[in-house]
Amino acid sequence: MRLTGSETSPYVRKVRVQAMEGGYWEQLDFNELGTTPIDPNAGIANPLKKVPALELGDGMVLFDSRVICEYLDGALGDGASFPAPGPARWTALRRQALGDGLLDAALLLRYETSLRPAELCWNDWCDGQTVKIDGALADMEAQAADFGDTVDIGTITTACALGYLDFRYKDKGWRETYPALGAWYAEFSQRPSMTATVPPE
Amino acid sequence: MRLTGSETSPYVRKVRVQAMEGGYWEQLDFNELGTTPIDPNAGIANPLKKVPALELGDGMVLFDSRVICEYLDGALGDGASFPAPGPARWTALRRQALGDGLLDAALLLRYETSLRPAELCWNDWCDGQTVKIDGALADMEAQAADFGDTVDIGTITTACALGYLDFRYKDKGWRETYPALGAWYAEFSQRPSMTATVPPE
Repeated sequence: MRLTGSETSPYVRKVRVQAMEGGYWEQLDFNELGTTPIDPNAGIANPLKKVPALELGDGMVLFDSRVICEYLDGALGDGASFPAPGPARWTALRRQALGDGLLDAALLLRYETSLRPAELCWNDWCDGQTVKIDGALADMEAQAADFGDTVDIGTITTACALGYLDFRYKDKGWRETYPALGAWYAEFSQRPSMTATVPPE
Repeated sequence: MRLTGSETSPYVRKVRVQAMEGGYWEQLDFNELGTTPIDPNAGIANPLKKVPALELGDGMVLFDSRVICEYLDGALGDGASFPAPGPARWTALRRQALGDGLLDAALLLRYETSLRPAELCWNDWCDGQTVKIDGALADMEAQAADFGDTVDIGTITTACALGYLDFRYKDKGWRETYPALGAWYAEFSQRPSMTATVPPE
């Protein structure tokens, strides 16, 4: 199976971390390709021209990261990342949605400040996305004591979201405001799956 | 359970259509609340300040539409909307991701052209989002012959995405370019769940 994506995409990182945790990363053919919303890369088999995209042997192309992670967890992994229906599943899926939501806002903020011509930037838009990022962080902080040593799609997504803040928003200083989350991430980010996927500068 | 959202949100419509198809819509307490990215509504229990949000009896708040739909399908429905792991599930989840991806692009395009001050609009951004919308439509067209009479989260999301184009992009004329998709939607959109949830002008 061929996984298309870039090493700087936090959504691609979710797939890579899960695949390393599940011990099947080496079974994937990683096709390094980047894209931006204003320069869609025609080489990406996803009709939405986003990464990650996963080409299966039968020609089917799966996307986005949520679908790919769930598929791979069952197809190549042991199913540990997506608990069976019940409280553990809703907690994991809610955490994934929260991390993805933080990332959606952080990406939109980055496009606004680093991709869009400076004279076209809109402060109200930046403020609105920042409300979402901070809301997500506060919710993660409230949950951090419950994360324990859980490694599933919920905590993997949380860690990839925090890693993206460290990558693109180095000065945000989120650890000062959210110390329990910072303590949890200090440990989780030392996992081999996380250290192997730190985005390149 | 309390569902917060607005009647104009296509993501909220997914939940409403699924709940009506599953026969449990009347069991939900619908809390009509709108929001925009630049004016986050503090009344929404979702830390990301997006709709839909679903408050469970134990105080847990689920989001986004994917998580809510899957939860409700099992908790109140008969599980027909989310097939068990296997080809039918990946097809349904891929279709949901495609419809959601179309909607993400269509919403960003609308924010760009209807919410952002006109002097701050960026044509390259609009063009990039339009590539995604058209890519999604072309993929849906290629699949339309396989939709048959399937009613699950994949076809529900597809229909809600097309309904949003009709609501906000009346002049797009997608039916001319994608006739098989148009023929499928002409039938699907007549389902009581769809006619009951047409967004108000």
